Amino acid sequence: MTLLAEKALHGDIRALARIISLVENEAPESEEIMKYLYPHTGKALVIGITGSPGAGKSTLVDKLILEFRKKKKTVGIIAVDPSSPFSGGAILADRIRMQRHANDPDVYIRSMGTRGSLGGVSRSTREAVKILDACGKDVVIIETVGVGQSEIDIVKLADTVCLVLVPGMGDDIQIMKAGIMEIADIFVVNKADRPGAEKIETEVKLMLDLIGKTDWFPPIHMTVAEKGDGVAELVEGIEKHGAFLKQSIHGIKKQKRKLAEEIKDILSRDIAKNVEKAWERQGTDDKIEAILGKELDPYTVAQNILNNIVTNEG
Amino acid sequence: MTLLAEKALHGDIRALARIISLVENEAPESEEIMKYLYPHTGKALVIGITGSPGAGKSTLVDKLILEFRKKKKTVGIIAVDPSSPFSGGAILADRIRMQRHANDPDVYIRSMGTRGSLGGVSRSTREAVKILDACGKDVVIIETVGVGQSEIDIVKLADTVCLVLVPGMGDDIQIMKAGIMEIADIFVVNKADRPGAEKIETEVKLMLDLIGKTDWFPPIHMTVAEKGDGVAELVEGIEKHGAFLKQSIHGIKKQKRKLAEEIKDILSRDIAKNVEKAWERQGTDDKIEAILGKELDPYTVAQNILNNIVTNEG
Repeated sequence: MTLLAEKALHGDIRALARIISLVENEAPESEEIMKYLYPHTGKALVIGITGSPGAGKSTLVDKLILEFRKKKKTVGIIAVDPSSPFSGGAILADRIRMQRHANDPDVYIRSMGTRGSLGGVSRSTREAVKILDACGKDVVIIETVGVGQSEIDIVKLADTVCLVLVPGMGDDIQIMKAGIMEIADIFVVNKADRPGAEKIETEVKLMLDLIGKTDWFPPIHMTVAEKGDGVAELVEGIEKHGAFLKQSIHGIKKQKRKLAEEIKDILSRDIAKNVEKAWERQGTDDKIEAILGKELDPYTVAQNILNNIVTNEG
Repeated sequence: MTLLAEKALHGDIRALARIISLVENEAPESEEIMKYLYPHTGKALVIGITGSPGAGKSTLVDKLILEFRKKKKTVGIIAVDPSSPFSGGAILADRIRMQRHANDPDVYIRSMGTRGSLGGVSRSTREAVKILDACGKDVVIIETVGVGQSEIDIVKLADTVCLVLVPGMGDDIQIMKAGIMEIADIFVVNKADRPGAEKIETEVKLMLDLIGKTDWFPPIHMTVAEKGDGVAELVEGIEKHGAFLKQSIHGIKKQKRKLAEEIKDILSRDIAKNVEKAWERQGTDDKIEAILGKELDPYTVAQNILNNIVTNEG
């Protein structure tokens, strides 16, 4: 396992891909590998891209890759699609465009998604970011295609979150209301050559003024990703935010908060494994019968199992 | 608290609403109330309605309510929208239609959704179903508006899952692929007066044949919810499935499996609380500093905390 990690650290793409798969499948050896890679993390610029469907996120990511490559930066992309069952093929078609980078050894694109728990996607995405970071990618981009709370949780794993808006969707105010303003570090009005682009810009500014100043005042970038317009400026904006995070108290606090969340996340997963073990060992068939007969209730049964696995100090 | 539960059991709507809110907010007293209500549960027919956006789910639910009311059944509806941030107002507008039942004391409609964790929505929906069941609703309908994995997890809480399809969406095969076939007990082709309805019916039949026979062969109902066509037959189909569950080994197994999941779910929540407590008590600031300095890694820190809360037997 250490050999595999060592290979990945030295640029072996197949080893890298294999490690991400191990993490995605929650293989037993994945924790050991993550521990081994951990000291090599912390160098990448981690960017999250989220926004309404149809906002042109995949096209924008494609152009961001080109722009970072011009600057000789290596790039890893994690395309996350947790809300898969109904999403259909259009999204995949969009992403095929990105495949033109497939022959560039300094660009690594990985799709992540699962039929399993959403917590699972969020965790394996977090670890995939670390793996790409440790293996020397200068930039890691997390792109979500979905539009739910879960995708927002995932995009929060990024250091710099870009919210992509688009003119003429009509529901911009909806987006504002939904508490997404707080997580966006940069606003992007894409397809900015369409009517209504300036209206959105004004609305976002207004909302930002309402929220009030913090250390970082999120800039609004106008782009036409299809033509590449405004993408170089967006990259500059992203890099500026990255530099801000490294220097400011705000950035250090954010890093600590994310680390605390990460530890709790690992802890929850480890505990879930203990629950499974306790469940299998204790034999609960008779208890289920008792619940069906209304002699017991599920709350009491859960409490009893808990008392058996958690110490008094816990 | 017991007084509140007692009031709800005797048909006090405000007490009922208050209890659901307590559960939704994970109030400390909610577990005690749930234990008190538990012996009264198990009588309601719990129906889950899911399907593509635009399939007419809300209209169908509206007509199902009318149909059950004709049969003098009392009805509770839980409208779940976990993927809120981008969903916009259209969905709410659809649901307003249902409000015509607002003056009927035997119909109770409740929206559930949260900005918090998805696990939270799933849990509070489960408990809301139990509350409505205990308080004497003959039928409880869970309707999801979203389209993600999370919504499918929620609709699994139902005894009878209806998957609503619609002609002309083009992505029916997508739906089939996505593993949703296994959870559907009844298929509904809504807007069946549109071209393509029979094509969907044939496709579903083909897929069901491919999957092979089980104890229950899911029927396909053709409806035009807007006009009420086919809704009475659908209600009959749903009741038939409910009767099947009560009699068959399959149904009893399903009930036990759901109960086991429920206990594990309660257990996970209780453990998460212990994690928070352990976290606060142990003071982890120095550990976070050590991780930032790459002297420690989050996996080791999590393991150490775990060792302090879980017994060796765990």
